[in-house]
Amino acid sequence: MENTDNLIDNKAHTRIEKDLLGEQAVPATALYGIQTQRAAQNFDITGMPISHFPDLIKALAMVKAAAAKANYQHGLLSEEKLSAITDACSDLIQGEHHEQFIVDLIQGGAGTSTNMNANEVIANIGLKKMGFEYGQYSHLHPNNDVNRSQSTNDVYPSAARLAMVFAAKPLQEAIIKLQNSLAIKGKEFSSILKMGRTQLQDAVPMTLGQEFNAFASDLGSETARIEDACLQLCELNLGGTAIGTGINAPKGYARLAISELADISGLPVTLSEDLIAASADMGAFITFSSALKRLAIKLSKLSNDLRLLSSGPRTGLGEINLPAMQPGSSIIPGKVNPVIPEAMNQAAFQVMGTDMTITMAAEAGQLQLNAMEPLIVYNLLNNARLLEKSIRMLDERCIQGITANKARCAQHVENSIGIVTALVPHIGYENASRIAGNALLSGSGVAELVKQEKLLSDEELAAILSPDTMVSSI
Amino acid sequence: MENTDNLIDNKAHTRIEKDLLGEQAVPATALYGIQTQRAAQNFDITGMPISHFPDLIKALAMVKAAAAKANYQHGLLSEEKLSAITDACSDLIQGEHHEQFIVDLIQGGAGTSTNMNANEVIANIGLKKMGFEYGQYSHLHPNNDVNRSQSTNDVYPSAARLAMVFAAKPLQEAIIKLQNSLAIKGKEFSSILKMGRTQLQDAVPMTLGQEFNAFASDLGSETARIEDACLQLCELNLGGTAIGTGINAPKGYARLAISELADISGLPVTLSEDLIAASADMGAFITFSSALKRLAIKLSKLSNDLRLLSSGPRTGLGEINLPAMQPGSSIIPGKVNPVIPEAMNQAAFQVMGTDMTITMAAEAGQLQLNAMEPLIVYNLLNNARLLEKSIRMLDERCIQGITANKARCAQHVENSIGIVTALVPHIGYENASRIAGNALLSGSGVAELVKQEKLLSDEELAAILSPDTMVSSI
Amino acid sequence: MENTDNLIDNKAHTRIEKDLLGEQAVPATALYGIQTQRAAQNFDITGMPISHFPDLIKALAMVKAAAAKANYQHGLLSEEKLSAITDACSDLIQGEHHEQFIVDLIQGGAGTSTNMNANEVIANIGLKKMGFEYGQYSHLHPNNDVNRSQSTNDVYPSAARLAMVFAAKPLQEAIIKLQNSLAIKGKEFSSILKMGRTQLQDAVPMTLGQEFNAFASDLGSETARIEDACLQLCELNLGGTAIGTGINAPKGYARLAISELADISGLPVTLSEDLIAASADMGAFITFSSALKRLAIKLSKLSNDLRLLSSGPRTGLGEINLPAMQPGSSIIPGKVNPVIPEAMNQAAFQVMGTDMTITMAAEAGQLQLNAMEPLIVYNLLNNARLLEKSIRMLDERCIQGITANKARCAQHVENSIGIVTALVPHIGYENASRIAGNALLSGSGVAELVKQEKLLSDEELAAILSPDTMVSSI
Amino acid sequence: MENTDNLIDNKAHTRIEKDLLGEQAVPATALYGIQTQRAAQNFDITGMPISHFPDLIKALAMVKAAAAKANYQHGLLSEEKLSAITDACSDLIQGEHHEQFIVDLIQGGAGTSTNMNANEVIANIGLKKMGFEYGQYSHLHPNNDVNRSQSTNDVYPSAARLAMVFAAKPLQEAIIKLQNSLAIKGKEFSSILKMGRTQLQDAVPMTLGQEFNAFASDLGSETARIEDACLQLCELNLGGTAIGTGINAPKGYARLAISELADISGLPVTLSEDLIAASADMGAFITFSSALKRLAIKLSKLSNDLRLLSSGPRTGLGEINLPAMQPGSSIIPGKVNPVIPEAMNQAAFQVMGTDMTITMAAEAGQLQLNAMEPLIVYNLLNNARLLEKSIRMLDERCIQGITANKARCAQHVENSIGIVTALVPHIGYENASRIAGNALLSGSGVAELVKQEKLLSDEELAAILSPDTMVSSI
Repeated sequence: MENTDNLIDNKAHTRIEKDLLGEQAVPATALYGIQTQRAAQNFDITGMPISHFPDLIKALAMVKAAAAKANYQHGLLSEEKLSAITDACSDLIQGEHHEQFIVDLIQGGAGTSTNMNANEVIANIGLKKMGFEYGQYSHLHPNNDVNRSQSTNDVYPSAARLAMVFAAKPLQEAIIKLQNSLAIKGKEFSSILKMGRTQLQDAVPMTLGQEFNAFASDLGSETARIEDACLQLCELNLGGTAIGTGINAPKGYARLAISELADISGLPVTLSEDLIAASADMGAFITFSSALKRLAIKLSKLSNDLRLLSSGPRTGLGEINLPAMQPGSSIIPGKVNPVIPEAMNQAAFQVMGTDMTITMAAEAGQLQLNAMEPLIVYNLLNNARLLEKSIRMLDERCIQGITANKARCAQHVENSIGIVTALVPHIGYENASRIAGNALLSGSGVAELVKQEKLLSDEELAAILSPDTMVSSI
Repeated sequence: MENTDNLIDNKAHTRIEKDLLGEQAVPATALYGIQTQRAAQNFDITGMPISHFPDLIKALAMVKAAAAKANYQHGLLSEEKLSAITDACSDLIQGEHHEQFIVDLIQGGAGTSTNMNANEVIANIGLKKMGFEYGQYSHLHPNNDVNRSQSTNDVYPSAARLAMVFAAKPLQEAIIKLQNSLAIKGKEFSSILKMGRTQLQDAVPMTLGQEFNAFASDLGSETARIEDACLQLCELNLGGTAIGTGINAPKGYARLAISELADISGLPVTLSEDLIAASADMGAFITFSSALKRLAIKLSKLSNDLRLLSSGPRTGLGEINLPAMQPGSSIIPGKVNPVIPEAMNQAAFQVMGTDMTITMAAEAGQLQLNAMEPLIVYNLLNNARLLEKSIRMLDERCIQGITANKARCAQHVENSIGIVTALVPHIGYENASRIAGNALLSGSGVAELVKQEKLLSDEELAAILSPDTMVSSI
Repeated sequence: MENTDNLIDNKAHTRIEKDLLGEQAVPATALYGIQTQRAAQNFDITGMPISHFPDLIKALAMVKAAAAKANYQHGLLSEEKLSAITDACSDLIQGEHHEQFIVDLIQGGAGTSTNMNANEVIANIGLKKMGFEYGQYSHLHPNNDVNRSQSTNDVYPSAARLAMVFAAKPLQEAIIKLQNSLAIKGKEFSSILKMGRTQLQDAVPMTLGQEFNAFASDLGSETARIEDACLQLCELNLGGTAIGTGINAPKGYARLAISELADISGLPVTLSEDLIAASADMGAFITFSSALKRLAIKLSKLSNDLRLLSSGPRTGLGEINLPAMQPGSSIIPGKVNPVIPEAMNQAAFQVMGTDMTITMAAEAGQLQLNAMEPLIVYNLLNNARLLEKSIRMLDERCIQGITANKARCAQHVENSIGIVTALVPHIGYENASRIAGNALLSGSGVAELVKQEKLLSDEELAAILSPDTMVSSI
Repeated sequence: MENTDNLIDNKAHTRIEKDLLGEQAVPATALYGIQTQRAAQNFDITGMPISHFPDLIKALAMVKAAAAKANYQHGLLSEEKLSAITDACSDLIQGEHHEQFIVDLIQGGAGTSTNMNANEVIANIGLKKMGFEYGQYSHLHPNNDVNRSQSTNDVYPSAARLAMVFAAKPLQEAIIKLQNSLAIKGKEFSSILKMGRTQLQDAVPMTLGQEFNAFASDLGSETARIEDACLQLCELNLGGTAIGTGINAPKGYARLAISELADISGLPVTLSEDLIAASADMGAFITFSSALKRLAIKLSKLSNDLRLLSSGPRTGLGEINLPAMQPGSSIIPGKVNPVIPEAMNQAAFQVMGTDMTITMAAEAGQLQLNAMEPLIVYNLLNNARLLEKSIRMLDERCIQGITANKARCAQHVENSIGIVTALVPHIGYENASRIAGNALLSGSGVAELVKQEKLLSDEELAAILSPDTMVSSI
């Protein structure tokens, strides 16, 4: 939020608005009103106003339009006012006037200022459409008309949930694309034999293709987890008004409003069974955050593995090459670093840490409301976007360009002692352990030592140590 | 883990066992063997050995029995060995010999020591059943027989998942009982009118019954969330052996073992589609931890509310009374504190914080394995038990004994200004705001002021402010 | 970061630059160069470029100027180049050209792109001052001259530490002002008797002044904690270059550079004893984050208490009034909410959660470097600013306007049973407990019951229950 | 806590005790009384009674003895009672009767049950010493005598702080020993040249000794951080009684009690300046937890590095060998895993995660008290012990036995491209980058290519690439 005092001073023309606390001058051309302006002055914390979150503005407009339609059917709004409101909401849904949402998203009041910002902007757009001046609220009132049958306590949580469902879509698409790129590499590398590692120690053989397929598989159920959360997010408390008793909304309004909102949003929104519980319930947010965190954990593990596998070029594992995206060092010439996975790791850590912020905010609800909800909304919308952007970065600027060091992978298998594992069913754990120990000490190969000891015939040995057998016996 | 050196010194009779690293004396009567003993010496960290986690021992025994049956069908175990192993597993499942699981649950090696503790104990129980001495492993070998076709890397994750599903059952039962107790209170208090509060400020009327029903509703989907996690936990990597390629297990073994395990455990266990991914995949654990955390957040919020509503007796909200469970103060006579919700809060915080431990451990997997899995298992099994116990405490020692201060609740409604809300649709937001302001300043009642200003007739006013209308208009 | 491709397309004139990876067109007027531009394309994650962190740009410029002066003294830079570099740095220190720092602060490469952004901008400003065109690096080279004797791995950590010390100053000032406002209220309320509460239950009397003084005292050592962290942050690894061995810097350079930096910054910066350890050491960052988190915990507890004490107006504790900053509800007329403390709570939760992000990033260092440092810097600079802004908000928009409800406070003391505590030394814990129980049941006052039972004379009772005695007997 | 009902049933003889809530039978031989028993029944959560925390019992006894001495000097206790109490405390300090502390450490009531457990045990030990029967409290009363001039709210926080200072000592010793072991390895490996790595990519040369010295240095200030926290922990609120106003304690008592406590404990304990603030202040606990977390982060990073450096034996970095502590795999013969660092990692994650638990508990204080303090105490005492034990494990079972793979380290340097860095000051960043690129593509050595291009003479090249120069030019 910029200093709105200056904003006002610099305008020749202001209009006077009035609320419970008195009068204030508002810029004459502002679509927002006095309550928005007070809130913008009160909360100057993060520098991230509501306008940075277009999905939330879109969702607010949808809720306001649905409420207006339900109010109209209950005879609580004239047809003229209905048109004014729904037209204004359409503008917002199409991305217009977002710069009028000037309040810091993190705010006290459980989102009241966000709701009032929407109410005031919609009223003023509507007034203009009706042929009136900004601020002539007797013709279309932010509270009495735009907020009719509503409270921040049902509007804000409902809009926030919708916004998250909107934000989840491009994220889910990004995940699927990343998975696809990993699977393509899985196919590309399917014939490259390499050593698998457990606890960073040589284990048994596998193919590099299996490794990349496993990366793809590991992300396989993440879109489903997010979808589960979205289904929970589609359960709304709209119509519960202040505390879930539906005070000031006519009987039947809630279901009507939900039905209109389903139409407008195209989402399978439903009404919560217990609206009092729903008013303070942060459960769906926690589940959504958990889904994002789970995804982040997997992306971070993937990034760690990519950095390990590409470590080198001479003194690391060196089994794969990440595409060079930028010079790696201001001092070491020729150094190319795994900068893309490193950035992915950091995005993931941000999501994991702020899951704890969300946890604390969710726990801090009291009685019929959770006043910390704006912080939850801030972090969830930011995190969904952060993950989407960094997944696309990882996919396009790293995964798609990975190449394999086939020779290095082969050399690792040849030198390895771990292939002794395949002999256990044939020569027993003790014999195999002794062979392994000797191989480590002497530097000799496992097959060689087995032959020396005549534990198996050459044919048996060849069959057991065949790559095809070793990498797949399920 | 006590110092096992003393254990050995104090025994007149020991037997000598041998492994890759050399020989060691093991207590003659110990069912565990040399690898267990080394691990017990290596890891003396938490003082919580595996024996504190009976669900895990039970699950390990089930996995071992299932593996033995699959091995037998593949001709890899004689009928005699099969009987010895499955009989030994039955003993463990029935709770016998748990004291032989002496290794600290938190251990390096990704659970190898836990697996070997099971292998050794089962081998020795089996040897005795077969008529041999402890330690005569040539007749029944911990690795070659009990661990046949297995690796720690498929056995440990599979057993850990089963153990969590077992631990989830009594937890889910405890949740349902708590919900039921809350709903009973909801019914009991259904006619007690009180003020709802948002942001700790007087809002609009509701009943105390609605408040307790909402507490019950708020927990309504927690068992389903846990059930979802349990379904994920039922997807196992058994048969993948070392890294998911199934090395050393015969083709077809994996599905056979899973099928046997489903029989033995009575759980709908299935085989993961990509066993390589599954070997290192911590996803189900994260989801289970998220479900426990979500439950903990809700229990903490409930406890906070109970403490708020019962605050007093003279200078707080005082709307309900918690049963007195113990004298509250060593210095203030007669003080009775909300000790039970306070303990519930603390259990909840423990679960929330250790969710971060689990997050970090899950993120720390590398390539084909996660070596930090024991820490995840430790915290999840502890947290499930902690929640179960504290929910029962909250239910039995607090909720069931709560009584209402009906008079105080009524007095709060009568004094309240918030009922002015119901007048908004009739006199408008501005008029209502003015009335509210005057009421606050003058100390007069809202109805009185409306009458003075002749904004509504007495009949209209009575109808609007009727409790039944105000507390439910959905 | 906006899409820089558009930026380039929209410019008629571009210049061609070249690096390890090839050529790219850069906007002709850009002060940054090819490496910055690549990085801006690679990292488009948070939408928060370096330019949002002026303290960091200032600190980078100071480090670059100090390095240039040390290089000059070692004969590694001509006087002309020295002037060009230090003049350019002066511009940056004075706040010019910050918009040229276009790379996302969260980036892979351990800050290399931030360092190169500085190197390129300084080189181009310098080139202009020397009379050359942008991009004519043969006359003043970003790496060979501006970055001479440096590596990202010593420059970035050093500049980040300085930036935090800069950010800590206004934060410390804000804390002191808040403390002062609380102490003023402590004095103002010094004669208002009220009940103290433990566990939300009535305890024993105190004054409201004591309560506010305690709020002030509770913040008393926070500036010292931050100062401790700043002292740690003043220990730098400048001169260690790539991994702390000082490769490519002349012997003696490190101490010289540190000494110049102390001059330029006015801060007591010193050289770490073990530069290899220092290169990867995140200890001072952790301590700084811990100090911010500790402060956040205290601010959150203060905010919780303010919200509790001002709860009401009719059905809460109602002992104090927070100034009304904005209408509280879109539906409940006249409602005024504690929006300022609520916003403070949320800022505090953000800091607490991201402390975990910082923890994870710090833990993720590997061998000679921590590649996650940009994430640490991002969160610490954001958190210091967030706390500073929200403390000022809390101070100016809440604390300074708090008023007391003296009558309500007095009434609480009169009604209270907790004053029975003062009788324990005179009538014993059992007698006092009985009196307390009777008072609660009967609704009678404690003094009355004591008189009835003739346990103490009227004079004794009056002396014991004298407010002055009860509220202070240390 | 075992089920105390059984305990009672199994005893033929019980005695009847009585409190505010009525009568209960207590085992005749129990040193604890009715309040302890109720608490043990109420809180059966973690299975970890107070007796698992000997430092806390010791500290409680010291506080009780100090209080008794101060009371005696104020004429509030007879000499006989003083002796009985202080003798009983001596027994506890010497480790006797700890099994009588049966209440779960995590409990509601802010530690009241822990305080009462101490009061009752001390009273009964004292009664026996005085020649009375257990439970004859008229001769020595848990509240009126043992708890004289005290409240849980000053006793419990004071004892908890002392206990932490006690727990910190062996932890600090363990850190110093670990550091020493690392430094010894630093000396041992001082002539082994190896490649340093940044971002897991080859950087520039260093010695393995420098690497281990850096490990030692990195822990260099951890004992000082803990010491800082201990100093804060030595500031006590003893004498503040219920809420810090000192009610029921005679004037002057507080300083006297502190002075006695300093004598008894040998610690530099002081009285907080503002006892009201101090009663609810969790600051020192947060600082202590932050110090433990910082240590944990460093230990985890060290463990990660050890696992990286010892990765292999054939397909990893393989620069060092960790001592083999146990067979590594139930399936892969000869595999030896880095089990000790892995266990250290897990202990570290536990500490990091529970720091968040402590954060939440500290934030949850309300008004004059923090009811969640037992959870903080539980985690801090557990974490201090966990770190001490795992540091000793890491030191004795891993660090001291590490050996170097000198040949492998040398081979890494010879093959490396990173040494090109040293040429930058002589041939410029662009030339050096080109050489580096060619070396990577061709597989040729850097020196060779420089010679081919005749950029430097053989003598110049030899001087620049001399190991001594490269590894140290500070």
